[in-house]
Amino acid sequence: MKIKRIAVTGGAGQIAYSLLFRIANGDFLGPNQPVALHLLDLPQFEGALKGVQMELDDCVFPLLKEVKVGSDAEEVFGGVHYAFLVGAKPRGPGMERKDLLADNGKIFVGQGKALNNAASKDVRVLVVGNPCNTNCLIAMHNAPDLPRTSFHAMTRLDQNRGVFQLAQKANVHTTEVTHMTIWGNHSATQVPDFLNAKIHGGPAVKLLDRKWLETEFVSIIQKRGAEVIAARGKSSAASAANAAVGALKAITEPTPHGQWFSSAVYTENNPYGIDEDLVFSFPCRSKGQGDFEIVKGLEIDSFLKEKIAITQKELMEERDLVRGLLK
Amino acid sequence: MKIKRIAVTGGAGQIAYSLLFRIANGDFLGPNQPVALHLLDLPQFEGALKGVQMELDDCVFPLLKEVKVGSDAEEVFGGVHYAFLVGAKPRGPGMERKDLLADNGKIFVGQGKALNNAASKDVRVLVVGNPCNTNCLIAMHNAPDLPRTSFHAMTRLDQNRGVFQLAQKANVHTTEVTHMTIWGNHSATQVPDFLNAKIHGGPAVKLLDRKWLETEFVSIIQKRGAEVIAARGKSSAASAANAAVGALKAITEPTPHGQWFSSAVYTENNPYGIDEDLVFSFPCRSKGQGDFEIVKGLEIDSFLKEKIAITQKELMEERDLVRGLLK
Repeated sequence: MKIKRIAVTGGAGQIAYSLLFRIANGDFLGPNQPVALHLLDLPQFEGALKGVQMELDDCVFPLLKEVKVGSDAEEVFGGVHYAFLVGAKPRGPGMERKDLLADNGKIFVGQGKALNNAASKDVRVLVVGNPCNTNCLIAMHNAPDLPRTSFHAMTRLDQNRGVFQLAQKANVHTTEVTHMTIWGNHSATQVPDFLNAKIHGGPAVKLLDRKWLETEFVSIIQKRGAEVIAARGKSSAASAANAAVGALKAITEPTPHGQWFSSAVYTENNPYGIDEDLVFSFPCRSKGQGDFEIVKGLEIDSFLKEKIAITQKELMEERDLVRGLLK
Repeated sequence: MKIKRIAVTGGAGQIAYSLLFRIANGDFLGPNQPVALHLLDLPQFEGALKGVQMELDDCVFPLLKEVKVGSDAEEVFGGVHYAFLVGAKPRGPGMERKDLLADNGKIFVGQGKALNNAASKDVRVLVVGNPCNTNCLIAMHNAPDLPRTSFHAMTRLDQNRGVFQLAQKANVHTTEVTHMTIWGNHSATQVPDFLNAKIHGGPAVKLLDRKWLETEFVSIIQKRGAEVIAARGKSSAASAANAAVGALKAITEPTPHGQWFSSAVYTENNPYGIDEDLVFSFPCRSKGQGDFEIVKGLEIDSFLKEKIAITQKELMEERDLVRGLLK
């Protein structure tokens, strides 16, 4: 079987530290697919990257055939079939959203160009580094030779958090909760859609109190990241890495009949009338190999409609702030 | 399928953070075995434990049916079928070996008693927290109702490191290196056995320079942990967690015909004349379900013999220092 090459940026960071070993173990592409890992980080982290490489070596994963590390995006992205863009500049104290978008924008302009020039033409890209929707939009715009459908931003962690909260409230196992959609931006304006979610195959709204769903449920999902930081003293890493594996796997493997998953994708010709030229989270289904479509015809009631308008507005504002970085 | 309950101590620590998600994903007991995780840590880390639990929840692992957290060993160990004893007190600045052994000794007296009183009678225990051999000896002595063969200390990370170094030197993939034995203590006196190791099914010593094997190879393995710390600025966590999964899996699953693995086990009636009443790393093979034997008849030349005597002496000294904690 031919090796699949997988790039991970922010390779010396905490999410990558949880992600790389899962990929090398076969959790992403399965137990028969040999893989090579290509780790990118800033020049000052090359020592730390080397340490991560040593630990990957010391795991003697049967599927791991090669580990490349470096700080030159074009070099590291050479021939990659998948790219997890995890690294991003975090918001510093007193930093405005505009500055955050601008600083990250520069990173994703460079990585978009590098992917365009060096990656395999069928590369699938998942942006995890925040603000991930707009970072993804920038990378996509700067990779004009790659199909826009090859770019995704991650709302899978929100989806998983939604599934867990519904399961806990309904007192069922998480495997009984399906069709959990996140609409819009991966931010505090995200819209966890309880209306179309199912428990035991039936509408979640038939089992759970609508008032709780509209208020507490939505709020818990939006604030969950902050709750984890408050408890652990560190931001979510292992659960983010797990979501990243799940997100790109969902795009790569055929979606089970009648199911869907959430992914933030390009809005061109979207069936929900969302403004074009955004990266927006929708319910999606895949035929495998990254060939996906947005699931049409979901019910959007007035409650969801209003929330979706807010998250759309936020994404349009973000786009305005990085206009100069788009082609 | 009945749930298997798995305890992990040091649940809020770095190794556990890499280990728990691997177990919950099915990497330890396979893709069909439902599991419950029982996390133990000190009372001051209960908040952090709660954060880890939230992240486990947010992964919606299909196999994970329950997460219990707490700081009372007997409560947390209730009904567990496997115990990864990862938590230990690290050596502080200026701390003597004697103090380190005494401080950790207290922890492992308590955990041995708690396992004895609360765990499933067929529990299999892997001690990862250092000094792991002697910690394991203490726990075993304080769990008189459990078979002594149920207790292991981890030398699997050393084994994996040995495999990687031989593979790299011989320019083959790690899957071509087998029969890698670690003798003795998981410490700087450990003996990575190149004499009985195989590459492509033949003796490693026929392919590689004996001088390199006796000097550099042994030294690299002994110092690898410090090298990782120098590069990452943190001690090995993901590779230690991976080794822990591999170690307890090796004991639980039947060993492939003609193969073996390294594990530190009780020396009673051992076939190599090692002093009795120690926990010493040997080549082992398992019939599955924890029913293992020490592999007999390996060649021990004068080089190995001398090294093994040194590591045995160290373990006997450690035992002398904790004599008061043994039954």
